[in-house]
Amino acid sequence: MIQTDILIIGAGPTGLFMVFEAGLLKLRCHIIDALPQPGGQLAELYPKKPIFDIPGYPSVGAGELIDNLMEQIKQFEPGFTLNEVAETIDKQEDGSFIVTTNRGTKHHAKAVAIAGGLGSFEPRKPELTDVAKFEEKGIEYFVRNPEMFRDKRIVIAGGGDSALDWSIFLADVASEVTLVHRRNEFRGALDSVEKVQELKKMGKINLITPAEVVELHGDEHLTAITLQKEGEKQTIETDYLIPLFGLTPKLGPIANWGLEIEKNAIKVNNALDYQTNVDGIYAVGDINTYPGKLKLILCGFHEATMACQSIYQRLNPGKKYILKYTTVSGIDGFDGSRKEAEKAVVKSID
Amino acid sequence: MIQTDILIIGAGPTGLFMVFEAGLLKLRCHIIDALPQPGGQLAELYPKKPIFDIPGYPSVGAGELIDNLMEQIKQFEPGFTLNEVAETIDKQEDGSFIVTTNRGTKHHAKAVAIAGGLGSFEPRKPELTDVAKFEEKGIEYFVRNPEMFRDKRIVIAGGGDSALDWSIFLADVASEVTLVHRRNEFRGALDSVEKVQELKKMGKINLITPAEVVELHGDEHLTAITLQKEGEKQTIETDYLIPLFGLTPKLGPIANWGLEIEKNAIKVNNALDYQTNVDGIYAVGDINTYPGKLKLILCGFHEATMACQSIYQRLNPGKKYILKYTTVSGIDGFDGSRKEAEKAVVKSID
Repeated sequence: MIQTDILIIGAGPTGLFMVFEAGLLKLRCHIIDALPQPGGQLAELYPKKPIFDIPGYPSVGAGELIDNLMEQIKQFEPGFTLNEVAETIDKQEDGSFIVTTNRGTKHHAKAVAIAGGLGSFEPRKPELTDVAKFEEKGIEYFVRNPEMFRDKRIVIAGGGDSALDWSIFLADVASEVTLVHRRNEFRGALDSVEKVQELKKMGKINLITPAEVVELHGDEHLTAITLQKEGEKQTIETDYLIPLFGLTPKLGPIANWGLEIEKNAIKVNNALDYQTNVDGIYAVGDINTYPGKLKLILCGFHEATMACQSIYQRLNPGKKYILKYTTVSGIDGFDGSRKEAEKAVVKSID
Repeated sequence: MIQTDILIIGAGPTGLFMVFEAGLLKLRCHIIDALPQPGGQLAELYPKKPIFDIPGYPSVGAGELIDNLMEQIKQFEPGFTLNEVAETIDKQEDGSFIVTTNRGTKHHAKAVAIAGGLGSFEPRKPELTDVAKFEEKGIEYFVRNPEMFRDKRIVIAGGGDSALDWSIFLADVASEVTLVHRRNEFRGALDSVEKVQELKKMGKINLITPAEVVELHGDEHLTAITLQKEGEKQTIETDYLIPLFGLTPKLGPIANWGLEIEKNAIKVNNALDYQTNVDGIYAVGDINTYPGKLKLILCGFHEATMACQSIYQRLNPGKKYILKYTTVSGIDGFDGSRKEAEKAVVKSID
């Protein structure tokens, strides 16, 4: 069982920054996320796009912001349970919680903060019989580890940025890359479209459009797929099918945790600490709602900070320890590191 | 009379960032500050020191953060009334406000946001008769424009970073720099202390310690000062005396604006929009207070954003226009500039 002070559900910018503020209060954090890497939609959906409203950044790439947040929190040594979805929560007699994921991983925490953004991102799946049978046996909705496709034959289906970018990347990894899309037109960064065009000419990407996957074949593992192109069917052998049809955010199992929900978001007490109707469970960032709520990253940063202060007081009743200027106090990492402003000297001049 | 949508009182990080969020909502801002430059205490008190808790910045110099905020807001063309203190406020029949400074500058605004930090920074003054008589006639508490000391004789009094740094800087500007401190020991960055030591040896700074200024001389303008050093008096001719004894934050005239004050801070409605008890006057950042308030820059950013959204709705009743992801919406500057994420193309591959 994983033990932590604050279990954060969601590794987007708000969840990541919460580790920092918790660390200043000497609280340890562990984060669960459905995606294979930290960063939430910033890392998964638009890592190369700029954000203009992060205070102090006239412009920052979404992926760059996540990298910076990871750097900012590293001395507080957050734990991660990635690729898993928080499924059930059980409140213990002492007020702590046990949260179990869809894969059975158990986490024991003194407080829980839901920083789930728009919800957990679930892949849109192709509407084919047998899809479930081949999941993790030839069908992958994410490229979690590119090395698993080394020297394999793969079919990527989709027409957006992910389909383009992974076709480009895996052209150097897989033995054979086939890109299938139901239209002739792709929608993505100009760069990516042009690069795929080039790789197709070089024979490194096999492009089939307009076409759709209509059948899956195989016994234990996927071995082939059938495509339909302008009324004609064609079957090609493959080791993997990677459907990249986009992600849909779903509130998911959290919807059954007994939290007050309004318009797909979790109601919190914004007048104090962003706690939900369940004592000890907080919700911060885009997933919460309150009068006047704005779904902005900078608001999530504030909410996470206020929640940390509240959790500190909850766990240390009566103690006074308030977040203050880091320029004055410096930062002591859990890894033994110390960051501080250069101290003034007191020195005579002769 | 200066006309604006939002009059912001205080040019610290919160006040500056407010210009940005207001700009996204097409509202124009003007800022009043008592200090000679934007940035509040970050620029005036610790520009070279690092801050560790700005989200997305593992470390950022206070001055650098201000530079970045100025860059971030420049397309929204904020106006500035610097070196002046907001003194009186008069609510007009139409709900707008006229704010007048200590120098008589009048500002007409549809809403007012007080982002005054710990208050307006007032210099600690030497306790000498005639001090008031020589203010701006030989006595300066800030180095607003170093060029005014070009080829002049100056006496700097004080033992901290400001006294050290300005002595160093002005050693190359003034014809004669005398540094007076009541102790032999200076308190500041090691660099600065060593540099003053070196300039003293080179004869570029005349150091007199432990000594205090005890008399001022002059008719219309300061012409000389008398120092007392270990019981002995000595009079030296000078064009300027620059006492740098530190700044004390004072709530100042704002305390008389009819706002609810608690522990030197302005009470606001944190459950909604950080508005004060006076309709149309908001308070954001370190100057406000509410249950659980944390005096952190990142909280000020959130508060300013919520206040902007509220002001928008106040000025545009019934209109729905909500701050949203800048990655999607882009930014249109008042100067005609446009910032936006690279658009996806829709393009076929042949």
